[in-house]
Amino acid sequence: MQPVAIGLLGLGTVGAEVARLVMDREGAFARRVGRWVVLRKVAVRDPHKGRSLDLPIDRLSTDPVEVAGAPEVDVVVELMGGIEPARTAVLAALRAGKDVVTANKALLAEHGAEIFDAARRSGRAVAFEGAVGGGIPIIQSLGVGLAGNRFRFLAAILNGTCNFILSNMTRSGLSYDEALRQAQSLGYAEADPALDVDGTDTAHKLAILVQLAFGASVTTALIPRQGIDTLQSADIQYAAELGYTVKLLAVARDHGEAGLELRVAPRLVRRGSPLAEVTGPDNAIRTVGEPVGATLISGQGAGAGPTASAVIGDLIDVIVGRAALTARSLDLWPGGAPEPRLCSPRDVRRRSYLRFSIADRPGVLGSIAQVLGRHGVSIASVIQHDPGEDDQPDAPVPLVMMTHLASEADLDAAMEAIDRLLVVSPPSVRLGVED
Amino acid sequence: MQPVAIGLLGLGTVGAEVARLVMDREGAFARRVGRWVVLRKVAVRDPHKGRSLDLPIDRLSTDPVEVAGAPEVDVVVELMGGIEPARTAVLAALRAGKDVVTANKALLAEHGAEIFDAARRSGRAVAFEGAVGGGIPIIQSLGVGLAGNRFRFLAAILNGTCNFILSNMTRSGLSYDEALRQAQSLGYAEADPALDVDGTDTAHKLAILVQLAFGASVTTALIPRQGIDTLQSADIQYAAELGYTVKLLAVARDHGEAGLELRVAPRLVRRGSPLAEVTGPDNAIRTVGEPVGATLISGQGAGAGPTASAVIGDLIDVIVGRAALTARSLDLWPGGAPEPRLCSPRDVRRRSYLRFSIADRPGVLGSIAQVLGRHGVSIASVIQHDPGEDDQPDAPVPLVMMTHLASEADLDAAMEAIDRLLVVSPPSVRLGVED
Ligand SMILES: NC(=O)c1ccc[n+]([C@@H]2O[C@H](COP(=O)([O-])OP(=O)(O)OC[C@H]3O[C@@H](n4cnc5c(N)ncnc54)[C@H](OP(=O)(O)O)[C@@H]3O)[C@@H](O)[C@H]2O)c1
Ligand SMILES: NC(=O)c1ccc[n+]([C@@H]2O[C@H](COP(=O)([O-])OP(=O)(O)OC[C@H]3O[C@@H](n4cnc5c(N)ncnc54)[C@H](OP(=O)(O)O)[C@@H]3O)[C@@H](O)[C@H]2O)c1
Repeated sequence: MQPVAIGLLGLGTVGAEVARLVMDREGAFARRVGRWVVLRKVAVRDPHKGRSLDLPIDRLSTDPVEVAGAPEVDVVVELMGGIEPARTAVLAALRAGKDVVTANKALLAEHGAEIFDAARRSGRAVAFEGAVGGGIPIIQSLGVGLAGNRFRFLAAILNGTCNFILSNMTRSGLSYDEALRQAQSLGYAEADPALDVDGTDTAHKLAILVQLAFGASVTTALIPRQGIDTLQSADIQYAAELGYTVKLLAVARDHGEAGLELRVAPRLVRRGSPLAEVTGPDNAIRTVGEPVGATLISGQGAGAGPTASAVIGDLIDVIVGRAALTARSLDLWPGGAPEPRLCSPRDVRRRSYLRFSIADRPGVLGSIAQVLGRHGVSIASVIQHDPGEDDQPDAPVPLVMMTHLASEADLDAAMEAIDRLLVVSPPSVRLGVED
Repeated sequence: MQPVAIGLLGLGTVGAEVARLVMDREGAFARRVGRWVVLRKVAVRDPHKGRSLDLPIDRLSTDPVEVAGAPEVDVVVELMGGIEPARTAVLAALRAGKDVVTANKALLAEHGAEIFDAARRSGRAVAFEGAVGGGIPIIQSLGVGLAGNRFRFLAAILNGTCNFILSNMTRSGLSYDEALRQAQSLGYAEADPALDVDGTDTAHKLAILVQLAFGASVTTALIPRQGIDTLQSADIQYAAELGYTVKLLAVARDHGEAGLELRVAPRLVRRGSPLAEVTGPDNAIRTVGEPVGATLISGQGAGAGPTASAVIGDLIDVIVGRAALTARSLDLWPGGAPEPRLCSPRDVRRRSYLRFSIADRPGVLGSIAQVLGRHGVSIASVIQHDPGEDDQPDAPVPLVMMTHLASEADLDAAMEAIDRLLVVSPPSVRLGVED
């Protein structure tokens, strides 16, 4: 059996687990791919760091671009993260005629076109199952198993940190800050969670999924997004009272002529529906395709084990030569693809949850309802609790509403007008409902 | 572009939808596979039957084996169902050097070894995503996306007819017979539902999944199974009272040295857990692998559209040459594989739900508890309702129990002994809990 030599870039959370599996399960991999899989070279930042893994020091390098291009390396596995030097290393590997496996969603979302162009030129494959949904085989499912479908809709929970925080805010009534601290102390959130909680990470992953399911090349900047960092626990509690759970959802919907709706935002999801029941750090992707109908796939969206599972699956796919065939069949991020038509807020109609802080006096509900009515927004239900006894007499009181279907543009305009009313303390809260 | 010629065997529910998609989406398929996909020959039983599809009569044949072997056919898609002539036709196709796509779970479960042996000899692939879980891409997920894992556990809802019937018995309190009639009138159950409701169809699919996830070759006959046709609505109602839903589950669990546990049976599943929330005709597969952890995949388990989605996915996989690589990598149903060690009821411990019909007099609960105790089964909780006022004074009354963990062998022995007590009207009911 001819060995296949891996160049591994990064030996952190995911890289170390991948290295462990490649070494521990040597025999199983050899049976799967018909070749011995060996770790030939490993790039790290600090070669002297203590590591749980026993690697001869001469296999370590601090130059990922050199490892990527090294003639003795057959396949490059990029697990450093970030844009540079990952981008340069991946391009160097492809130009040197090597297949690449990566879990780097930021890199693909931002530079997919450049990377897949380089892959096409050299006839190589880039496999990236680990970039979306951890161990969930969503890339294979959309690109291969469900390849005969036309997708019309996709809604997904793609960030485990956010889902963990929201689950805890829902279950224990914690504030966002408390839930974030808990997630950090349990290892479910990074010290700097900005890219997770502001929706950027979810938007990266949505850009990748949209390429696969809709064949549309969108960069993250085109995806409107709202994070969970401004969510208040009051809204989660009111949503629960109305029978909903709040989830950070990535949504893509094909509106035909009107264009593609893309959005990352906290959304109300009806309790008991499949995405509502995905709790803790799990991820899930729900798609609706023709002819398959609705499909849901869920599991651990991050962590060393799940992500390594995806990377190893990709490694097998690449080594047996399947990934190259998939790449040719899917033609991802094709060169010169026109920007997809994105639909305007006029064309997107949804139900919404609204919360206002209002002066506790007669007639306020009426004035708000009037403004909504003027913008064509009709009210489905209202919650207004009696102010508690301890509340100050002049303190603003909450008013919660659910609307019927209305266009996003009308809702935005109505909210702006309402926030100008003297009896309302801005900013009011609006969260969409994903039915 | 060189065309690829399909020989389609069967133009029924699934076959007609596959034919429609191949013709309607010609351009999309050509882009995916780099060749024009044409329906060259179609085998049916009755060539004069009126069909929604417009096929020239000279493409129809009543001889599937002839179509399978015809030199002008490149790929054979078998959608007739049943063992013969499907088996002979598939073997003829493979011997003639053609790849095969099939959705025929009975054929693979019963003759997998023979068919995959023929495929290996001729270096061809057999793709069978449609055979398990309709459009759910479970075969690709286990065989490719999750290929780097060792599986320890699999639990699945694999028969849409049964899940539809059980969901309706749960929701509307219908009897089994009423729910079956409703399923038939809505097209969710066949006129002769025997193989669905007695668990045979589920066992076929479990045999296939076990081959993929555990690499174990088991024929359906080796899988102990119990259907839903003997379930009583009382048990579904008591289960609900205890916080459980009854599902027909296929379960495979690796007990290491003790062997593999395989079982098809109605099981109590805790409400709110992922499989409990799969309702109506949907299917779902939950797996636990190392390093990926738990993964769930669900969707429509049958029907023309979902199954055609799987068949088209396989067709693309086969035509681009990926299926052949997968076949070589997975080596399914290898020749001369030893029968796997199946574990004995001594080694399987689970909690159980028990229902007895007992004489309504003091001391009966005590005698039953005594027998259970003698067999090492301890009781976790008991439900005994006051007999209703209208009940006859001497009529037996129900006694429901949940046990702690106990071995299947001990439970069986205890149930046998209890059914011999004079104060008990046999047969008593025992349903396992899947925790
Ligand atoms: N962690 C997860 O749960 C998860 C889930 C899905 C996807 N991913 C993706 O997987 C990738 C890796 O994530 P991770 O969590 O494993 O990251 P990590 O723990 O921060 O590890 C990064 C590794 O890359 C090395 N590295 C960083 N910059 C380098 C440079 N300039 N030159 C050489 N080596 C360099 C580091 O070396 P030192 O060890 O010397 O510092 C470290 O070994 C990222 O793209 C991430 O988005 C991660
Ligand atoms: N239906 C589903 O939802 C579903 C889901 C998953 C898997 N499957 C599997 O898919 C396969 C097809 O199922 P189906 O529901 O489409 O079956 P179906 O509706 O009964 O159609 C069977 C087709 O095969 C043809 N046929 C049967 N015996 C034949 C023979 N001896 N010679 C020539 N043609 C013959 C029939 O011809 P005529 O039209 O002339 O009668 C008919 O077109 C089965 O293996 C089934 O288990 C079905």
